[in-house]
Amino acid sequence: MASIQIIILITLLCQRWCDAGSVWPMPQIMSTSESMLKITQEFQFETDVPTDILNQAFQRYRKLIFLGPLPRHEPGAAVNPNRDAIKAVGNLTKLFVQIDDVSANLTLNSDESYSLSIHAHPQPVAFLHAKQTWGALRGLESFSQLIDATYDGFFIQETKIVDYPRFKYRGVMLDSARHYLTLDVILQNLDAMSYNKFNVFHWHIVDDQSFPFVSLTYPQLSQHGSYTPRHVYTPDDVQMVIEYARDRGIRVIVEFDTPGHSSSWRSIPNFLTPCYSKNGVPNGQFGPINPILNSTYTILEDFFREIKKRFPDQYVHLGGDEVNFSCWQSNPDIQNFMTQHGFGDHYELLEQYYEHNLVTIMEKIGLRYIIWQDVVDNNVKVDPNTVVQVWKTSPSYKAELAKVTKMNLQTILSSCWYLNYIGYGRDWERFYRCDPQDFKGTQQQKNLVIGGEACIWGEYVDSTNLMERFWPRASAVSERLWSSAKVTNVDAALPRIDHHRCYQLIRRGLRAQPINGYSFCQAEYNVVMNHLDRDEL
Amino acid sequence: MASIQIIILITLLCQRWCDAGSVWPMPQIMSTSESMLKITQEFQFETDVPTDILNQAFQRYRKLIFLGPLPRHEPGAAVNPNRDAIKAVGNLTKLFVQIDDVSANLTLNSDESYSLSIHAHPQPVAFLHAKQTWGALRGLESFSQLIDATYDGFFIQETKIVDYPRFKYRGVMLDSARHYLTLDVILQNLDAMSYNKFNVFHWHIVDDQSFPFVSLTYPQLSQHGSYTPRHVYTPDDVQMVIEYARDRGIRVIVEFDTPGHSSSWRSIPNFLTPCYSKNGVPNGQFGPINPILNSTYTILEDFFREIKKRFPDQYVHLGGDEVNFSCWQSNPDIQNFMTQHGFGDHYELLEQYYEHNLVTIMEKIGLRYIIWQDVVDNNVKVDPNTVVQVWKTSPSYKAELAKVTKMNLQTILSSCWYLNYIGYGRDWERFYRCDPQDFKGTQQQKNLVIGGEACIWGEYVDSTNLMERFWPRASAVSERLWSSAKVTNVDAALPRIDHHRCYQLIRRGLRAQPINGYSFCQAEYNVVMNHLDRDEL
Repeated sequence: MASIQIIILITLLCQRWCDAGSVWPMPQIMSTSESMLKITQEFQFETDVPTDILNQAFQRYRKLIFLGPLPRHEPGAAVNPNRDAIKAVGNLTKLFVQIDDVSANLTLNSDESYSLSIHAHPQPVAFLHAKQTWGALRGLESFSQLIDATYDGFFIQETKIVDYPRFKYRGVMLDSARHYLTLDVILQNLDAMSYNKFNVFHWHIVDDQSFPFVSLTYPQLSQHGSYTPRHVYTPDDVQMVIEYARDRGIRVIVEFDTPGHSSSWRSIPNFLTPCYSKNGVPNGQFGPINPILNSTYTILEDFFREIKKRFPDQYVHLGGDEVNFSCWQSNPDIQNFMTQHGFGDHYELLEQYYEHNLVTIMEKIGLRYIIWQDVVDNNVKVDPNTVVQVWKTSPSYKAELAKVTKMNLQTILSSCWYLNYIGYGRDWERFYRCDPQDFKGTQQQKNLVIGGEACIWGEYVDSTNLMERFWPRASAVSERLWSSAKVTNVDAALPRIDHHRCYQLIRRGLRAQPINGYSFCQAEYNVVMNHLDRDEL
Repeated sequence: MASIQIIILITLLCQRWCDAGSVWPMPQIMSTSESMLKITQEFQFETDVPTDILNQAFQRYRKLIFLGPLPRHEPGAAVNPNRDAIKAVGNLTKLFVQIDDVSANLTLNSDESYSLSIHAHPQPVAFLHAKQTWGALRGLESFSQLIDATYDGFFIQETKIVDYPRFKYRGVMLDSARHYLTLDVILQNLDAMSYNKFNVFHWHIVDDQSFPFVSLTYPQLSQHGSYTPRHVYTPDDVQMVIEYARDRGIRVIVEFDTPGHSSSWRSIPNFLTPCYSKNGVPNGQFGPINPILNSTYTILEDFFREIKKRFPDQYVHLGGDEVNFSCWQSNPDIQNFMTQHGFGDHYELLEQYYEHNLVTIMEKIGLRYIIWQDVVDNNVKVDPNTVVQVWKTSPSYKAELAKVTKMNLQTILSSCWYLNYIGYGRDWERFYRCDPQDFKGTQQQKNLVIGGEACIWGEYVDSTNLMERFWPRASAVSERLWSSAKVTNVDAALPRIDHHRCYQLIRRGLRAQPINGYSFCQAEYNVVMNHLDRDEL
């Protein structure tokens, strides 16, 4: 009982205190004054660099700002304070957006910094400055989150923000192979990512179970490897995802995991390793990609040349995790090859051989790559630009981060952010507490940690439950990756993440589950605001 | 790799074998022949007892049957067999529905048995017979599940079903107090319940955290106890839920949990117990309902008289769980009352006193009741018609079932079916294995177990995630409660529950999560069938 009253009090205080001016993830520097400005329907974004991306973002954010109004301070309800009339000192009629270099491409090294000033005095002025378009998009998101929608209209406090990401790689991984994800849910997830300032969509697009990616070079891959002819991503679908992401400042890094996790490539003849039974005859089953045939590497080169054409990002994800050696061990041709090359019984040397050839192809065709930690754990020599994704929890991911950065390689952390693992209660606090630079190493090593990635593997996830299961749990990761390393207080984050869920996810039409026990949102999911205006109001 | 091939093989066999003629929950007796009948758009339901409920059910099931052909056997896709043309021996143009007594009310003792015959020879005839409307509704659901939708049209096998529920109480409990559930999601859940032959919606409508129920007798309850004036269920809302449920053969049993779990009743003066601090003054906080005032029982009688008017079911749920004694202990008036009544320090006697008065009111106004096990654990004498809901896991629920039935009381089990508890992987198998009659007792005791209830408490559940989190996990409970006690094979249930998820939940527009690892549905959630007819088909 006592605890309930206290929580109601906190909720009540939070109604007054947390709602306006809360930005998630927390900006690096932010200050506000008590002066309030009103925003009316006349409000416009303005710029002298009206690119397509910026103009579309203006349209999007105009819609998002005026989604309300939210009846935040209505009388009568138990946990709401009496409604205070909001006193504005003036009207804010525009936000001027200045970008120094609109031509800068979206890459790993894009500049996402921005500064945002909303002045009330001597007269209302709002100004957003960014070096590149990508920073302006982040600034527009922050601006939209500052706006307080009430029955008296839309308001914004006098605010000053100077902001930039702590890490340059802030990723989300979806798996569309264990279960197919509809295009619609992938786009919704990109929306949610942009509301959380994530900047990489790592698309684990194929795996053992299915090959939904339609390749123009090898169309048989999806024809025989997809669950059905409808469970595919056509070239148009993929192009739409790439453009939709880019419009939101999100890179798309596609993963084709080899030589393991590749059963669904079986339609290419002589590409997978034939497995043999104990009496020395092929048993009709197939293992990892066959590493001993020259044709294997011709196929891979052709395939990745197509990928380079179709995905604009400099990076591709090459996978390389969990190669099972038993099929290779059963195959007499592989055994002969091992002997000829002096590999003995060390199949990790064969894996090394495969990976060496694969990364040589990448260098040849000009693609950089991310790989799961297994590849460097198996001592494959990789390009200095390589990004190593640390995903294992045992042995310690901290030791792995130290090891990888000691090799002078860039790394991203996922070990503590496998959000497919679910349990009862508040697990986001664990995600929030995990820090990618929390390991023993020099400053130089720490600097090689370029970020992290929230992953949601697809064994128990499809279009029915992706959004609500992933959000706002992934928001905990977004703040860890964007905000200052000092922003670590879980108690302070709790009402903020609840507010973020209600106002930036649910209110904007995205399913995001409750993660902190009992609560409510002013506008619940699937209740259109206008429908809320019942007779009692 | 090997295991993947085997699963693909099972999937492939299942495409042929599991799809047609699979009914969930499994009917008591069912046989099919190889003879196939075609169902065209001319198909009609017919009856000589055209009640509103039946006519509406006909309309509903006609829509559900013709939801759009599923391209089940398309060529080319990896895990699909080559398409076989389906050969029908004739057209089925109608299902004739006969009901012996259409006037029978929906109660705990309603008859839900039915028999269904689809004959191919000498000519196509289909006949559904039920004693009461409620059995006809179950038969229509089974009929709809028998129909195989393909690109060649709609087909049904020659089939004979004789079916009836193992238990007469098959409940689902939703909690709309910890989080508000929108009307829309409550109705969706009723749809899902009817597809699973559940017959009781136990509505845990209020609790400490909020009071969304709009009472006409005490309107201040929701005015001051709801999260906001929009987080309420108006009389129209409640009426709609009751009618929507009844149309599907589902009783609505509303719960008003007292004397604990009642903080949200605080707007009624002198109804909750004032708590005192150690120096003997009221501390401004309130505990359970005040059991020592006569006014308490007047209020309760008035309130439950309204409930009796507004909810047609014979039963109401009185709660009675988890009464915290600390506030009662602090209050000097309560202490005096305890002394006067010779209760000593035994606050469970005071709870007994309260419950005794409450059930006496129920007898007076003519309501039967369900109570959580705590009430009988505290030795309150209850009406012989009482249903005791066993929910605790410790001490053993089997011992509790034995104890309660030894007291000659009816009981329902929920201990093993708290579906709000989630974890990674296949937890439905655990729900499936739990049996309400699996305890030491006489046959007479076993007969007093009238069913069970799948509960989903609302701390981490609202309209964003209720449907996908609850379904199809709750389907495991539905089969346990409807089908023969012999239907226990998890391996056999696995492809059937997957099929049920795809065809009876997702295809019908309900979010139901994948629960068995990687898989696909022919029609995934949010992909409208017609949109699937892409260029490649």
